[in-house]
Amino acid sequence: MSLFAISGFSQTNSLNLMPWPQEVILGSSILEIKPDFTILVLTKSTKRIDVATTKFINRLGGRTGVFFENGFAVSNNELKNATVEISYKRAGELKINEDESYQLQVSSTKITINATTDIGVIYALETLLQLVDNNLNSYYFPEVEINDSPRFTWRGLMIDVARHFQPIDVLKRNLDAMAAVKMNVFHWHLTDDQGFRIESKTHPKLHQLGSDGLYYTQEQIKDIVQYASDRGIRVVPEVDVPGHATAILTAYPEIGSKDTIYSIERFSGIFDPTLDPTNEKTYKILGDLFGEMAALFPDTYFHIGGDENEGKHWDENQKIQEFKRKNNINSNHHLQTFMNIRLQEILAKHGKSVMGWEEIMTDNMPTSALIHSWKGSNQGDMLKSSLFKAAKNGYNTVLSNGYYIDLMQPVINHYLVDPIPKNNNLSELEKARILGGEATMWSELVTNLTIDSRIWPRTAAIAERFWSSGDIVDVLSMYKRLDVVSFRLEELGITHIRNRDVILRNITNNQNIEPLVTLTKVCEPLKNYSRNAGGTEYKTYSPFTLFADACTADASDAIIFKELVNDFSLTKNENIKAEIVSLLKKWASNYSQFSQLKKGSPILNNIEPLSKNLSEISTTLLSILNSKKPTKSEYENFNQQLLQIEKPIEDVELIIAKDLKKLVAILIDEKKGSDNFLEKVKKSN
Amino acid sequence: MSLFAISGFSQTNSLNLMPWPQEVILGSSILEIKPDFTILVLTKSTKRIDVATTKFINRLGGRTGVFFENGFAVSNNELKNATVEISYKRAGELKINEDESYQLQVSSTKITINATTDIGVIYALETLLQLVDNNLNSYYFPEVEINDSPRFTWRGLMIDVARHFQPIDVLKRNLDAMAAVKMNVFHWHLTDDQGFRIESKTHPKLHQLGSDGLYYTQEQIKDIVQYASDRGIRVVPEVDVPGHATAILTAYPEIGSKDTIYSIERFSGIFDPTLDPTNEKTYKILGDLFGEMAALFPDTYFHIGGDENEGKHWDENQKIQEFKRKNNINSNHHLQTFMNIRLQEILAKHGKSVMGWEEIMTDNMPTSALIHSWKGSNQGDMLKSSLFKAAKNGYNTVLSNGYYIDLMQPVINHYLVDPIPKNNNLSELEKARILGGEATMWSELVTNLTIDSRIWPRTAAIAERFWSSGDIVDVLSMYKRLDVVSFRLEELGITHIRNRDVILRNITNNQNIEPLVTLTKVCEPLKNYSRNAGGTEYKTYSPFTLFADACTADASDAIIFKELVNDFSLTKNENIKAEIVSLLKKWASNYSQFSQLKKGSPILNNIEPLSKNLSEISTTLLSILNSKKPTKSEYENFNQQLLQIEKPIEDVELIIAKDLKKLVAILIDEKKGSDNFLEKVKKSN
Repeated sequence: MSLFAISGFSQTNSLNLMPWPQEVILGSSILEIKPDFTILVLTKSTKRIDVATTKFINRLGGRTGVFFENGFAVSNNELKNATVEISYKRAGELKINEDESYQLQVSSTKITINATTDIGVIYALETLLQLVDNNLNSYYFPEVEINDSPRFTWRGLMIDVARHFQPIDVLKRNLDAMAAVKMNVFHWHLTDDQGFRIESKTHPKLHQLGSDGLYYTQEQIKDIVQYASDRGIRVVPEVDVPGHATAILTAYPEIGSKDTIYSIERFSGIFDPTLDPTNEKTYKILGDLFGEMAALFPDTYFHIGGDENEGKHWDENQKIQEFKRKNNINSNHHLQTFMNIRLQEILAKHGKSVMGWEEIMTDNMPTSALIHSWKGSNQGDMLKSSLFKAAKNGYNTVLSNGYYIDLMQPVINHYLVDPIPKNNNLSELEKARILGGEATMWSELVTNLTIDSRIWPRTAAIAERFWSSGDIVDVLSMYKRLDVVSFRLEELGITHIRNRDVILRNITNNQNIEPLVTLTKVCEPLKNYSRNAGGTEYKTYSPFTLFADACTADASDAIIFKELVNDFSLTKNENIKAEIVSLLKKWASNYSQFSQLKKGSPILNNIEPLSKNLSEISTTLLSILNSKKPTKSEYENFNQQLLQIEKPIEDVELIIAKDLKKLVAILIDEKKGSDNFLEKVKKSN
Repeated sequence: MSLFAISGFSQTNSLNLMPWPQEVILGSSILEIKPDFTILVLTKSTKRIDVATTKFINRLGGRTGVFFENGFAVSNNELKNATVEISYKRAGELKINEDESYQLQVSSTKITINATTDIGVIYALETLLQLVDNNLNSYYFPEVEINDSPRFTWRGLMIDVARHFQPIDVLKRNLDAMAAVKMNVFHWHLTDDQGFRIESKTHPKLHQLGSDGLYYTQEQIKDIVQYASDRGIRVVPEVDVPGHATAILTAYPEIGSKDTIYSIERFSGIFDPTLDPTNEKTYKILGDLFGEMAALFPDTYFHIGGDENEGKHWDENQKIQEFKRKNNINSNHHLQTFMNIRLQEILAKHGKSVMGWEEIMTDNMPTSALIHSWKGSNQGDMLKSSLFKAAKNGYNTVLSNGYYIDLMQPVINHYLVDPIPKNNNLSELEKARILGGEATMWSELVTNLTIDSRIWPRTAAIAERFWSSGDIVDVLSMYKRLDVVSFRLEELGITHIRNRDVILRNITNNQNIEPLVTLTKVCEPLKNYSRNAGGTEYKTYSPFTLFADACTADASDAIIFKELVNDFSLTKNENIKAEIVSLLKKWASNYSQFSQLKKGSPILNNIEPLSKNLSEISTTLLSILNSKKPTKSEYENFNQQLLQIEKPIEDVELIIAKDLKKLVAILIDEKKGSDNFLEKVKKSN
């Protein structure tokens, strides 16, 4: 056996593992994947192991095309010479700080998996699938020794199913994908102003009047909880109160703080309807509901929301004002705490601990509560202030600020956010209270057609942040591995790649989509909620089948272009220049191709300026590139055109503007333009 | 108002309706689709209407990009000037010969829908969506008057979920697609040798031991039945007995005809395991199961299978032989009838009528049974012999022979099969007994990744056969309309288009898929079960993520090439020749592009000859085309290469072989090749 250690993490290594394991020792031999591939489970199998091994064989066969003789693992010791031997000590429990570690050894003749729990086995199998490689004639596993365990115990993805309902199959495929990148908490945001998504048997008006018919039956909820459990994933339900409760009040206006007619909210934003914390019926309804849910959700934690309550209707309500005076409650925040404590008591009776957005952290809140930190500098708070404060005050806490994937930011913005950054003033005990983090998929602007492309692949990089050592921060390596992980997510049914073309066929009315594909590779949806300013442009039933919905964060050609321009600025290499020219030519010709489609589809009228602007500025740049001494008017043209492409159109931005400017600056230097005008152009860029 | 009637069916008309309505009168004005578009339901709404109108508005917004002010229909008479006004008399019942007719009127200011039942309203809305058209600046409905009703009352799609389990979301999206083309029977083939897919509470071993964990819970079954009902679709369940019962016998070997150990079948084909019709426990288990199912499936009909029982195990069983002698049963077919009659009696107690494959039609079978005709000339029977026989013998009957979409035949083969062809010897009464037909999707060779591309779009053309007048047989028009319907099915989540590229990304290991896309457009999966000869090549867990799975019937470039060659043979037009050359050039260059991918993916080694052969023969043809007098060796080359491309490779065939031959024959004529050799070449082709 010849093994050489990968010390920490080497940028040049060939493995496409994500999240990167704690320890990887790569050997030089291989184990070829052949039809006689078999899995032997030495310990008595669990359902988790059954599901994982069967799916493993299916995925391995699917991607290699090898026809396996055995479609299922065996637990029969009579099987001689199994390819994979699995041992583990016990079934894992779905709770924080459970042992999720595993050891994986691949030699040229045998694969061995050892783990404490069956959850560790699941992760070992996922790592093994990520190891599949090929030479000219066959697929193989490389010789390797991996010792792995997570850095954080809470590696979550929140999906908001209130703003846009997500069918069961969306959730299941995302649970599959979560397991594939070793995430273990599905936070299910089940209620909000725009919908109440739980079948309630005690108060059926909740789902009957609060959901437009789009809710999960209790059987479906059990099914999802079981499906998650089979993949080692905990499910934390959220009922968001006292704000974000319009859907609840549509069903039960009598527990609202204002005497008015409520109806399901169709817009996005922060709204006034608020539960009345002074009304006993509020606790009766929530108590019954929590009781039903406690029976459906085995997890210890129960998320009660608690965010963004401004208490406007409380201020307007005489009775509530009186209650505050009588009980010496001197702020709305304290009134909300009063309510939270009562909810906490109700949940405690069902054996549940409260989790809530950071607003629930007040003096009276018991430290058994888990604080969900979400505000950041954009909410006027210091980064991680509530996270650190919670840890210092004795609360367990989980970070979501920095992981808001609905903001459509580039993956790197999330990847480099560490829940416990290197320079911090936390004690070991305080650090231990930071359980991990959660990516949050708010669904104001997504439907089941597009949600996958908003979650993936970026969440895989966030998963690495939660699992891997804090030293794994090489961005180029992350991009390279993320590309592979992204494409492999299709195996699990994730639709983030395939659905782009569905939308483009829709927009073009089934004409040639190539010109639009080119555009999606340089356009990104507007970021940070600027797509839906004030929450009033899109209603829940507005179309999300538009060009912006086909675009994603991290537009691929824009990333390539950025790298090329950067390399060119450093090297002035002619081959790189040729690649830049090739991209510019593609963009320059876009408009003539685009124009051929226009007659076939009026939607394209709105997108036309994008194509036109891109073609025009690319043409100008090509002309500057090709001339020995570009004219003043060429540069002026460029500057004019730049102003155009910097304007958002149809909810997207041409993301290459900065790098076009950078390229021109380089060219001005290169063309030895020394007159005042050129210096001015350069400066203005 | 200026209307001109479309007399019967005009090939040149612009409407892309499918199935074609019984009467269409097209006007010249239009009704533009604007944000103030609204739907008013004048009659009290039903859930069916709620579902249909909400989905209608969502789909209309999605494809036009118009932001509607109202996302839901209203039943409030206060709404003035609604765009669409819907009236109907009553909720439709899910039974044969229910009134499904509708009238649809579009004027420049108003759309009116009238129907007897809410099912008719659903169909009117589907027709309305198919009418959406556009000019340069906006989307509109054309002025039109449509009177429509189905020719046949039974317009079915059977999906086999036994050979490969199909998740709930696959069924739901296919139910949506069925409704879109006005199909109304979902025949759910729930059990077979390879799986028992129903949760049984009376005999849970059935699903526990017979399904590999892949079955529908009773709640899921109720959900599907409700989902279908909301779309005007009946659900007919099938439990296939006494043959095709290995999965049942895996759970309850004691009711088998042979004392042996049964296990779930992994191959395809006809197998020996057969229920014992002389064992009372057989009727106890089936009776209990049928009782459970009768409560789940409201439909009158219950399909008991009954096909392909050869009775081998009956012949080998002494007890069964004795039983036959004692009861004067002188053939296995009569023994099966004995069983069928008992099952029929059990079902009758639950208010159900028996439906079964044509083998159940024996002398003793009551005429309340519905005969499912499936055998054809390929089973040694005359076409439709059992269909006509059933009708003449007083049975209602349904045709599936000719609609076996799993055979991967071109759409035209199905489209031109008429359950009641023009020349027949049936009385009016006998004709009335032919209720319609069913497309059958057997799932030996499909998974949830590929099943849509095997069902659609061909089933839309079959749906037209079942709904429209028998005079609607214009094949060119069908192809044109089918193209549009096919692309629109994506709106409903059908994955037949998008999943091709998923498979190609898998095969190429995420390299550039263009060379393979080109190949899929001229390759078709092997037809008529020759892909899986003897049923022993593929197991249920074999990979179905291969090149053949990315290919479909009716390969698009092959269809275009066929038409071009045909047109060229008639016209010798140079423009057509140029188009042929353009295709040949694309094919000629395929291999060099393909070769660049090879290193990245060993699966491609097997497909390589396809690309090589295509490129070589195309190169030869181009050379023949370009030379004034092609040489003998060029023609010899062609003939040699033709032999190569006629051989199936990796379960697909290059479907253009015939038309390449035809093209060469034309060229020989054109090049005035008069020597013996050329005549010989021409003849041999």
